Amino acid sequence: MASSHDQPVVSFLGPVASYSHQASSLTRAQPGLGLLLTPSQGGSAGFPRGQMALETDVFDEVQDRRVTAGVVPFENSTNGSVVFTLDNLADRNGRYKDVTVDGEIFVDVHHCLLGRKKPSEKLDQAHETSGACAPAAASPSPSVLDSLSHIRRLYSHPQAFGQCNAFISTYLKGVEIIDVSSTSKAAEIVSQDETGTWAAISNHLALSLYGLDLLGKNIEDREDNTTRFLVIGTNPSVPDDWDLQKLSIARSGSKSLVSFTVPHTAPGALADVLGCFREFNLNLTSINSRPSLLAPFQYIFFVEFEGHRYDDADGRVKGALERISQAAQSWRWLGSWERYR
Amino acid sequence: MASSHDQPVVSFLGPVASYSHQASSLTRAQPGLGLLLTPSQGGSAGFPRGQMALETDVFDEVQDRRVTAGVVPFENSTNGSVVFTLDNLADRNGRYKDVTVDGEIFVDVHHCLLGRKKPSEKLDQAHETSGACAPAAASPSPSVLDSLSHIRRLYSHPQAFGQCNAFISTYLKGVEIIDVSSTSKAAEIVSQDETGTWAAISNHLALSLYGLDLLGKNIEDREDNTTRFLVIGTNPSVPDDWDLQKLSIARSGSKSLVSFTVPHTAPGALADVLGCFREFNLNLTSINSRPSLLAPFQYIFFVEFEGHRYDDADGRVKGALERISQAAQSWRWLGSWERYR
Repeated sequence: MASSHDQPVVSFLGPVASYSHQASSLTRAQPGLGLLLTPSQGGSAGFPRGQMALETDVFDEVQDRRVTAGVVPFENSTNGSVVFTLDNLADRNGRYKDVTVDGEIFVDVHHCLLGRKKPSEKLDQAHETSGACAPAAASPSPSVLDSLSHIRRLYSHPQAFGQCNAFISTYLKGVEIIDVSSTSKAAEIVSQDETGTWAAISNHLALSLYGLDLLGKNIEDREDNTTRFLVIGTNPSVPDDWDLQKLSIARSGSKSLVSFTVPHTAPGALADVLGCFREFNLNLTSINSRPSLLAPFQYIFFVEFEGHRYDDADGRVKGALERISQAAQSWRWLGSWERYR
Repeated sequence: MASSHDQPVVSFLGPVASYSHQASSLTRAQPGLGLLLTPSQGGSAGFPRGQMALETDVFDEVQDRRVTAGVVPFENSTNGSVVFTLDNLADRNGRYKDVTVDGEIFVDVHHCLLGRKKPSEKLDQAHETSGACAPAAASPSPSVLDSLSHIRRLYSHPQAFGQCNAFISTYLKGVEIIDVSSTSKAAEIVSQDETGTWAAISNHLALSLYGLDLLGKNIEDREDNTTRFLVIGTNPSVPDDWDLQKLSIARSGSKSLVSFTVPHTAPGALADVLGCFREFNLNLTSINSRPSLLAPFQYIFFVEFEGHRYDDADGRVKGALERISQAAQSWRWLGSWERYR
């Protein structure tokens, strides 16, 4: 792909039918210009534990201008921050120096359990030999659509496991848990199972794509399970008239993201940096930290706040960033974007 | 076990030979009184993905006074916070209302790769059929002790995978990754492998315990890989003359941990609470957040700071906690302890 595009190309954490794909489909370019959605190159490589590689690939593709924008998961309302994305944003090696956050996308996440139904003859045998072997079938919850007693292995993304703890511990206790790089990849793997004993926590798009049976639906611990994705780009390459993240709902302010480290030997340094936001009355909306990897138990902090670096009539964002540049050991503005939630 | 003990009983995230066991062995009671170290009850239950259950067990045992203290991992210098411990400390259901943090323990973590050496006849065959199949053997790193080309499956704890990314992507690319509840459990599983193709990321204690071969050592990404454990107890049940966490090194101040939520509709509420520490000149040493699970994208925050609630001559900790009780929606003092690092 060339470094400039007639049609915007958006890279997401593949493969097709992943939640990232759903999120990407909600991005918008200017009217009349469609987006070409493409799984990241790593998405087809089939790493057994490829999330880091895959997300790195999205960041690589954006940094190298091989795509116009990328879509990466940032946090889930049940399971918390996505550390792989924070680690890429930390950019400890300076690989992603041009990458900025240009928008956010919220996707409601409803997980399904996909696999093969228990063959009826096996079910009958099981009932003959042991009446207690199929508690799920004997007393199904509304969301369990079939017996699960034949399931021996469960594939999914680590974040999805974290969002379905109650279901797993109730209906799938003791099954072997195997992490894969995406929920859609999990469904693909299960579609190749010849034993009929594997299942995947995946999404409804993957059900028909891979020809599986629906064994359970809405199996997430909480009904309000939502994942927030970030749209990343390289500011110089994104024309001003593109509005990748605009959805057809009302604008509700803007947000910015900065990362910083603090001088380790100065007491109060972290409070000093956080005080910069307070001094300019900027509302903090999230704080995260990751190991700096410069020395043990030193951190790189991520602060999201309300305000936009380039839509800053009263100069509060400018003022706070100037103060941060004095108080922090190092810092980086990672992006500002409009909110449409 | 009764609710009072002649000999202190310390529960850790089992099984035997885990890093938590190592950390527990560094706890100290008063002179002349030994500690009885015991893996948590869940440690022998063999959950395939039991960490949450296991850590919950340690918290349960402490809350119910079945043990004197518990040892749980809090953060790793390479891989960051342990979210399961944060979630237990968040105590969203009020199960652990008496649990406090009473100390911290640092353990240097050096991972080994344990498994079965490649049989020499197989190695020869492999060389005959494909000269390129064993790059690790052809050009070994100092830490790789044997060919790894026969390894098909890798077992370990999720945090250990996160600490050995470079090694895995260099020498074990494409192997199947399977999460288990502890690094020691991983070694136990691999010891039962009859194919000779499984390996575990584990520790040196497990090498002899399970009779495995050492395939690689010091395989962690960073030499300064350290895990910080917290000693948890129930304050009323720990006699004053016990000093569970004192190590034979100089004291270096004290720390406290609080959790809090902020009123969601009040702009600046998070900055206000953080300002309480600044107002009383208390140095913040870590900040973490987890989903509150009250509503999407509301958080419970964890702040560690220098100072001790009960060794507070100038009243700064008392002052800050009083201000926090006004500024936060809810808050909880989770403990204060002496540092000996």
